[in-house]
Amino acid sequence: MDVVEYTDRLLKNAKESSRKIASAGSLLKNRALEKIAEDLRANKQQIISENKKDLNTAAEMGLSSSVIDRLTLTDARIDDMADGVMTIVGLRDPVGEVLDGCVRPNGLKISKVRVPLGVVAIIYEARPNVTADAAALCLKTGNATILRGGKESIHSNVAIYKVIESALESAGLDKRCVQVMETVDRAAVDILLKADEYVDVIIPRGGESLIRAITGKSTIPVIKHYQGICHTYVDKFADLQMALDICVNAKAQRPATCNAMETMLVHKDVADSFLPESIVKLREAGVEIKGCKDTLDVLTRHKDKLPDNCIDDIKLATDEDWATEYLDMVLSVKVTQSLDEAIDHIAKYGSAHSDAIVTENYANAERFTAEVDSAATYVNASTRFTDGGEFGMGAEIGISTDKLHARGPMGLPELTSYKYIVHGNGQVRG
Amino acid sequence: MDVVEYTDRLLKNAKESSRKIASAGSLLKNRALEKIAEDLRANKQQIISENKKDLNTAAEMGLSSSVIDRLTLTDARIDDMADGVMTIVGLRDPVGEVLDGCVRPNGLKISKVRVPLGVVAIIYEARPNVTADAAALCLKTGNATILRGGKESIHSNVAIYKVIESALESAGLDKRCVQVMETVDRAAVDILLKADEYVDVIIPRGGESLIRAITGKSTIPVIKHYQGICHTYVDKFADLQMALDICVNAKAQRPATCNAMETMLVHKDVADSFLPESIVKLREAGVEIKGCKDTLDVLTRHKDKLPDNCIDDIKLATDEDWATEYLDMVLSVKVTQSLDEAIDHIAKYGSAHSDAIVTENYANAERFTAEVDSAATYVNASTRFTDGGEFGMGAEIGISTDKLHARGPMGLPELTSYKYIVHGNGQVRG
Repeated sequence: MDVVEYTDRLLKNAKESSRKIASAGSLLKNRALEKIAEDLRANKQQIISENKKDLNTAAEMGLSSSVIDRLTLTDARIDDMADGVMTIVGLRDPVGEVLDGCVRPNGLKISKVRVPLGVVAIIYEARPNVTADAAALCLKTGNATILRGGKESIHSNVAIYKVIESALESAGLDKRCVQVMETVDRAAVDILLKADEYVDVIIPRGGESLIRAITGKSTIPVIKHYQGICHTYVDKFADLQMALDICVNAKAQRPATCNAMETMLVHKDVADSFLPESIVKLREAGVEIKGCKDTLDVLTRHKDKLPDNCIDDIKLATDEDWATEYLDMVLSVKVTQSLDEAIDHIAKYGSAHSDAIVTENYANAERFTAEVDSAATYVNASTRFTDGGEFGMGAEIGISTDKLHARGPMGLPELTSYKYIVHGNGQVRG
Repeated sequence: MDVVEYTDRLLKNAKESSRKIASAGSLLKNRALEKIAEDLRANKQQIISENKKDLNTAAEMGLSSSVIDRLTLTDARIDDMADGVMTIVGLRDPVGEVLDGCVRPNGLKISKVRVPLGVVAIIYEARPNVTADAAALCLKTGNATILRGGKESIHSNVAIYKVIESALESAGLDKRCVQVMETVDRAAVDILLKADEYVDVIIPRGGESLIRAITGKSTIPVIKHYQGICHTYVDKFADLQMALDICVNAKAQRPATCNAMETMLVHKDVADSFLPESIVKLREAGVEIKGCKDTLDVLTRHKDKLPDNCIDDIKLATDEDWATEYLDMVLSVKVTQSLDEAIDHIAKYGSAHSDAIVTENYANAERFTAEVDSAATYVNASTRFTDGGEFGMGAEIGISTDKLHARGPMGLPELTSYKYIVHGNGQVRG
């Protein structure tokens, strides 16, 4: 079967099965999820042996150790995958929730009811656990899913898919409601991206270039997760010890995540008291510093509080640095003249993901949370909390930097739409 | 100034002013809206004389009388426009509404708060009243707007815009929060559609080809309103008198609207009792009928109940008819063997806009509303009610056939996004 035929069949399968899964009850969906979790555990050896094929290819291709790490499946990681599926079993099914309703003067009873989106396509790179995660989240919310993983993980993804497929079947669900693309042909993706007749939403998970390429080509709505250039602004009225703890955590606890801090902004009035100690702590945590001119001046003035040669290691931050998501142990530092300058800097260079102010001043806290137009704005907490789990959603399909449909961490309700159901007794329009 | 420079400035103006309008209070926004309404009434003659220029061009170009009608502004129509703006003053401002919130076990207080989308671009055809409507809806919801009307209405749109602009200024708002593109150069639209750095959402209002072209080109999320191929299914258990009233209303009350019925589905068991009378009534209302083979057979059997030659006027419906939005006094009629066949027909040919069942049977009503995946599903009422006003929204920016973000009639809340505001007291992630 050629790629056009193959993709076409996949799309039709998804659309057809979406009608069935949409009306499946929570009990049936949960039973299928439990079976998936059970079968993932039961088929560990098979999955690991398929994963080895991917790992061998990755080694031959000379992929980086971090990619290989993300690709690797172990006994423990498959258990984690199964645990993740079981977590989703425990979450409330959002389908059917009545969001709003009224009786109109003419007697029409209108309710706005949560329904599945329909067909969700997820395009992702590397990590094969996304296959089980995304399938489980979409299944719980009554959506049919088309999963397209990276070619590096094709054997692992297909192995996980086969387990899911047979679990769905034995639970009595249409097995076509989860499908993994078993081809690595890019033409299949191109067809998928134009298939607005079949697919309701595309969720890409991966680097910015993947997401931009998909957005550029797709005629289907895309929920995007671009970069996270997150800021922490240490206000003039900050509790400096708290600011120190928050900044070190936001930067160094897990620098490769999108909610890690990339730029620290410090009000000029506290620069002398805050910068030397914080730079020492950040460097101790392994962070490389790039500072604005004022930052360098402050540090030079307080040379005696810094380790030898420390100043020489600190580079001057450029305009490009302010706009860079390092995802690494690197931090840009800027001294600002005012809260306004901090807010303007975030508007200009930020990515509207997560930004924090550290302050004890009520008015400044209020202004920052109101005027910084980010998915999450924080007062006196680390930006690292922007996460479905930390927000109490129980599970997360991604973090949206879009403003439409979903913003910030996306849980189960963000995988649904709604419809209006109208009950009348013969009303006609006058 | 060339078109690139011009569009660039427009985009930057919108983005800059969006930060200001986002935090403007309801009082200030309402004052500006009242001033707009007042100034529209005060400047009628100026607007009408600019409208004449468009009408002259339209006449020269030989545009159809329906286009010319939609384009024409009169005293009364400008009053309607101003009344529309005043209606929006009276609606509740959704910005700032707390949608959800919790305290996490670590003490973080999370609230999910409604905020403006940011910059909304509206691309529309013909009717110049959209300029005032859309500007007012976006202003009320704290969004900056870029309005791009059709070239047929450029003078009218600019005249209305000038009134709005000066009203904004005298109300003390940044006048750049509403901008009309004063060029008809298509290059300006092409730049706009790729300006994802500046624009948060595109809302096209117009025919399907306009919307498809925009969706194909845009890298910005588009809220679409495709066609409305709406069905009414007359069930075996229908109250046939009610079915008759509903079908005539759904088809003939205003056939050019997207919520008008295009196909009537009739269960075989009631075809003999329902079809002859309903066809007579529909024809009396001026509706041309296209029927399936069974429809023609039924009518032929009941020839005596129909006017002379009636049967000869009824064409056989083709596959194309089932998929056509006539927007006119034409109706496709199909006899179905079962509720299932009706639901399948709607899934295959419908446009997921508005579909109705007429029935007295509880189970069939429940199945129809659950299984028909449309923005609005009706039991025993006309599909003509799918409308912001009829749904109690007070105002409508369009009817979305998308499932993402907004579905069905879009009121003020659909012009907003949300953000998470998180208050802590030093929390860091462990």
